[in-house]
Amino acid sequence: MASAEAVAALVEAGGAHVPRLMERLEVRLGELAASHGDVLGEHAGATIAAGGKRLRPLLVFLAAGPEPRDEEGVLRAAIAVELIHSATLVHDDVLDGAALRRGRPTVVAAAGRAMATATGDLLFSRAFAELARSGDPEAIRMLSDASSALAEGELMQRADAWDVAVTRERYLARCDLKTARLFEAACRLGALGGAGFPEELGEFGRRIGLAFQLLDDVLDVSGPAERTGKHRGTDLLDGTVTLPLILAREESVELARLDLRSVRTPAAAEAVCEAIAASGVLDEARAQALAMVADAKTGLPDLADAQRAALELVADGVVDRFA
Amino acid sequence: MASAEAVAALVEAGGAHVPRLMERLEVRLGELAASHGDVLGEHAGATIAAGGKRLRPLLVFLAAGPEPRDEEGVLRAAIAVELIHSATLVHDDVLDGAALRRGRPTVVAAAGRAMATATGDLLFSRAFAELARSGDPEAIRMLSDASSALAEGELMQRADAWDVAVTRERYLARCDLKTARLFEAACRLGALGGAGFPEELGEFGRRIGLAFQLLDDVLDVSGPAERTGKHRGTDLLDGTVTLPLILAREESVELARLDLRSVRTPAAAEAVCEAIAASGVLDEARAQALAMVADAKTGLPDLADAQRAALELVADGVVDRFA
Repeated sequence: MASAEAVAALVEAGGAHVPRLMERLEVRLGELAASHGDVLGEHAGATIAAGGKRLRPLLVFLAAGPEPRDEEGVLRAAIAVELIHSATLVHDDVLDGAALRRGRPTVVAAAGRAMATATGDLLFSRAFAELARSGDPEAIRMLSDASSALAEGELMQRADAWDVAVTRERYLARCDLKTARLFEAACRLGALGGAGFPEELGEFGRRIGLAFQLLDDVLDVSGPAERTGKHRGTDLLDGTVTLPLILAREESVELARLDLRSVRTPAAAEAVCEAIAASGVLDEARAQALAMVADAKTGLPDLADAQRAALELVADGVVDRFA
Repeated sequence: MASAEAVAALVEAGGAHVPRLMERLEVRLGELAASHGDVLGEHAGATIAAGGKRLRPLLVFLAAGPEPRDEEGVLRAAIAVELIHSATLVHDDVLDGAALRRGRPTVVAAAGRAMATATGDLLFSRAFAELARSGDPEAIRMLSDASSALAEGELMQRADAWDVAVTRERYLARCDLKTARLFEAACRLGALGGAGFPEELGEFGRRIGLAFQLLDDVLDVSGPAERTGKHRGTDLLDGTVTLPLILAREESVELARLDLRSVRTPAAAEAVCEAIAASGVLDEARAQALAMVADAKTGLPDLADAQRAALELVADGVVDRFA
């Protein structure tokens, strides 16, 4: 997942249906943005178009396999998970007052908090409208559960902010809610309209989603900024306690005594990142994520070789992205 | 709708099923708040519990009629529309930085913008989860269309802010999106699980929803503050152009020349409200709303007498609330 080339390779490996569906996805997302008049066309449209790696739709397509039973349903599911993901990004940017995302002005920067909040709400609503048109209540249940989990994860993160005594278990529960459950839903939804195994593929998605979040949190500490496009230690400045700090507090008396509220500047956050890295826990955190990816691959059900290979490539891609 | 007594009278008039369903609604909303752990229990729970008149659930129950075909589905629909309504209130309060709603601290005041934004997102998600469990894709389509319309109405309001040249038609389109469509969905959803006539009852809901918004906008100009619990002219301070100003600009050269951005203080807004009232247009705006309510009643389909009488009472209640 490190580059556009790597994604292209993944798309190829998934079989001929994947590039075709990825293309249809872009067309449909574009139509959707255009169908809501100038206001949505401008703001949500920019958000959707700015794109990103479309990792969640890719999971839907790969989980569906090469000959999905219900291709239109699979496509709708991919659109819906991407819209939910986009909605949360728009709302996150409002809260963070972020100026740029993926190199483009955020909705909040371009149009203000009110427009951005409403844009996020609209993207949420359109996600459900999209799935409702596919007519499968089971699919809508999966999406609404994942989307509830996402919001609960966000609530938990804010509730636990500045609390350095957060346990590893509670941290993992938060990552599960805010990241892994939408990965799980993507895979389950794909399986539902495809070759089956919703339970097993859902579990696969959940595990790589958890690994994805862990590695993202490690990267926020390890940097360097050139790779991530942002400064190290943004989580610390936000009061968000992640696995590296949780582990490092067991190794370092200074870090155990740290009051996060005293970390107020990028330079101070950078220094804490150095101390965490020096405590030697980053490799351990990475190893935990890698073990999750290995478990995800081991747990894959009895799939056709090409489908299995493509899913394994995505799992490895999650790791490579942060290598 | 002027008082708790008036609502109680409505509930009575609707038949024995209405108080029973209203009670079940409260129990279920309470369970829902409690089922999401301490964080949701605290914030979304407070929002849901703070209640309000439950006008939209009441419409669901009355549209369903005395012997709903699918009582559980009707109840789920009522919960879902109330959750969508609550979600938008929570997000509105974030944008307005409102301290109180219905006399209680808002989520944003109690817990900050981040928690409040996530709480709103969670309420949205739970609304769809609730309806998904009833298993009717048609119902989910109705809700997601209404919820999309709501966000689009909000976007339109912000896009048109400070523009005094907004036409009556565009104003009505905005009111339709941000208010009437959820009233419509409430009635359609009730009809769907009840005695039928979804089109006609949906149209009834849409018309009284539009009247509701018009009268609310008149009240913001007419005051007095003792009745509305807020100062006159909050819409003006917000840059929101509503029917009274649109009509008054045709009557008064001064108002036609007004630059809304120059209206910066509650006292200045109060003075503009006086000028609008003095132009004599408030009665005309009220008359337009009353005509919509009359149309709504005339357009009611061939229902049992008790059901029709109850729906007519709600329609009149919308008017009385602002009388």
